[in-house]
Amino acid sequence: MPILPTFDDVTAAAARLAGHVHRTPVLTSRTMNDETGAQVFFKCENFQRMGAFKFRGGFNALSRFDDRQRKAGVVTFSSGNHAQAIALSARLLGIPATIIMPHDAPASKMAATRGYGGNVVVYDRYTEDREAIGRKLAEEQGMTLIPPYDHPDVIAGQGTAAMELFDETGPLDALFVPLGGGGLLSGSALAARALSPQCRIYGVEPEAGNDGQQSFRSGSIVHIDTPRTIADGAQTQHLGGYTFGIIKRDVDDICTASDAELIECMRFFAGRMKIVVEPTGCLGLAAVRNMKAALAGKRVGVVISGGNIDLERFAALLAG
Amino acid sequence: MPILPTFDDVTAAAARLAGHVHRTPVLTSRTMNDETGAQVFFKCENFQRMGAFKFRGGFNALSRFDDRQRKAGVVTFSSGNHAQAIALSARLLGIPATIIMPHDAPASKMAATRGYGGNVVVYDRYTEDREAIGRKLAEEQGMTLIPPYDHPDVIAGQGTAAMELFDETGPLDALFVPLGGGGLLSGSALAARALSPQCRIYGVEPEAGNDGQQSFRSGSIVHIDTPRTIADGAQTQHLGGYTFGIIKRDVDDICTASDAELIECMRFFAGRMKIVVEPTGCLGLAAVRNMKAALAGKRVGVVISGGNIDLERFAALLAG
Repeated sequence: MPILPTFDDVTAAAARLAGHVHRTPVLTSRTMNDETGAQVFFKCENFQRMGAFKFRGGFNALSRFDDRQRKAGVVTFSSGNHAQAIALSARLLGIPATIIMPHDAPASKMAATRGYGGNVVVYDRYTEDREAIGRKLAEEQGMTLIPPYDHPDVIAGQGTAAMELFDETGPLDALFVPLGGGGLLSGSALAARALSPQCRIYGVEPEAGNDGQQSFRSGSIVHIDTPRTIADGAQTQHLGGYTFGIIKRDVDDICTASDAELIECMRFFAGRMKIVVEPTGCLGLAAVRNMKAALAGKRVGVVISGGNIDLERFAALLAG
Repeated sequence: MPILPTFDDVTAAAARLAGHVHRTPVLTSRTMNDETGAQVFFKCENFQRMGAFKFRGGFNALSRFDDRQRKAGVVTFSSGNHAQAIALSARLLGIPATIIMPHDAPASKMAATRGYGGNVVVYDRYTEDREAIGRKLAEEQGMTLIPPYDHPDVIAGQGTAAMELFDETGPLDALFVPLGGGGLLSGSALAARALSPQCRIYGVEPEAGNDGQQSFRSGSIVHIDTPRTIADGAQTQHLGGYTFGIIKRDVDDICTASDAELIECMRFFAGRMKIVVEPTGCLGLAAVRNMKAALAGKRVGVVISGGNIDLERFAALLAG
């Protein structure tokens, strides 16, 4: 059993991030309040640096490097927002960064990662194991491996978003958080348990990839194949030891949302709230809509995890 | 020569609007600062109630009604954001509202106006004169006519957006404001002249409909045919006596932007800043990009006027 990070680690992360991270706005919508009968507060991490909450965890982890680690550099594997988060954090801190990306990752994401100064190492996702490549680079070249979610410093960094939310709203009755590998959910749970002890905490997964729900209900980590869903930030195959340890202890339930529901929420965000939210970022609102009978009269927080989506894809999903 | 509203009218409007209007966020973008070499502050009226700055002027005008006016009601003509602004303000203040809309106005806009409780009167835009219908209703039924822009209380209300911007940023070197009939620009100019006297003030029009630029340069109001442009909020045919009086006195120049430039800005707002902006709302940024050689090192304000655009149309413009 790993030693789990605590709320003290979240507050320490917040101090490290001050001046580097955006304090993202908390938005509300009269239309959504009318629809749900609840008072809903949206924490908008789509306005975070590089467009997603991932910058918080990446920057916190790299900030804790000692001199030897800074010199040898960081290595990570990701085809998504974590790659850019590590590349940007490393550049800001003057640390060399190596990012292992699948050969068929979108050109725009590779370009963005290289644009932040990251050294991109390409692998074949059908024949090679990215974690093994990462470990090998770490061992041979002395780099420190920072995985996308299952790391105490990453979890503590991600928890600062919910910490800011509670600072702005005060205690809430319920909090809904997108769930992929569990970094954001476990960090949010640490913040919620400390700042709003009565708050019910829900993780929300894509219906097609409910490994977290299965794990939560069975009591041990369930592995699944990469799920087919538009929520590309939540296509993880399993939770990690740290994230599941916190989720099992602190989270009240895991619910799911269908791709069709995510698209409806994306349309609501764009049409009524005038914000661009990526499919994964729509998970929280989709769950609120599904549970609204139970939420009437409650004060509800929703973490919007990010807004990174190709405009062509966004346009296609809006057009329906 | 009409008696022009002053900055005192803007501060009085701000007091009337307090608690009813959203204090919209001021966003920044590192990417745009890098592109322009300037420090750019975006006042986001796309997050205003009913999705555009128009609520400010409508609510301010209706708040000043005396008992007789409140009872007899308000009448206006608009096919766009002003219709919804008056309908919503009237509902909030318990005033009957009649909105004269063209028979071929988008069904969604008529529905939204009716949804706010407005009594929609339809006219044929090819054979009837909406201003004459409005005056007739006003005379026969004692209603007060509140036109979309050329009214001191409307202008004073619109000026509160720039007032909030300066309150947040302090003095600026330049301010860029979309220009249709001139309500937003003239109100913004009153605020800028009082709060940031050295600030250069620019109105920005669609290239296809530069009646404001022609009027500004010739010194008297120029009328044009309804211009063909995607900036539907700036398809006005002429400025008004009040708005032109202030613009002539207080504005430094009027510039223009092409539809192609507006689409590029719309894509930038969605892709990088994660916000939905209607074509008219993109005018300010388009002008900043065109003038960036002169703006390097400056502190620049941009008013984003609104975010009301059909999602299908938005998707089509994003997809390009």
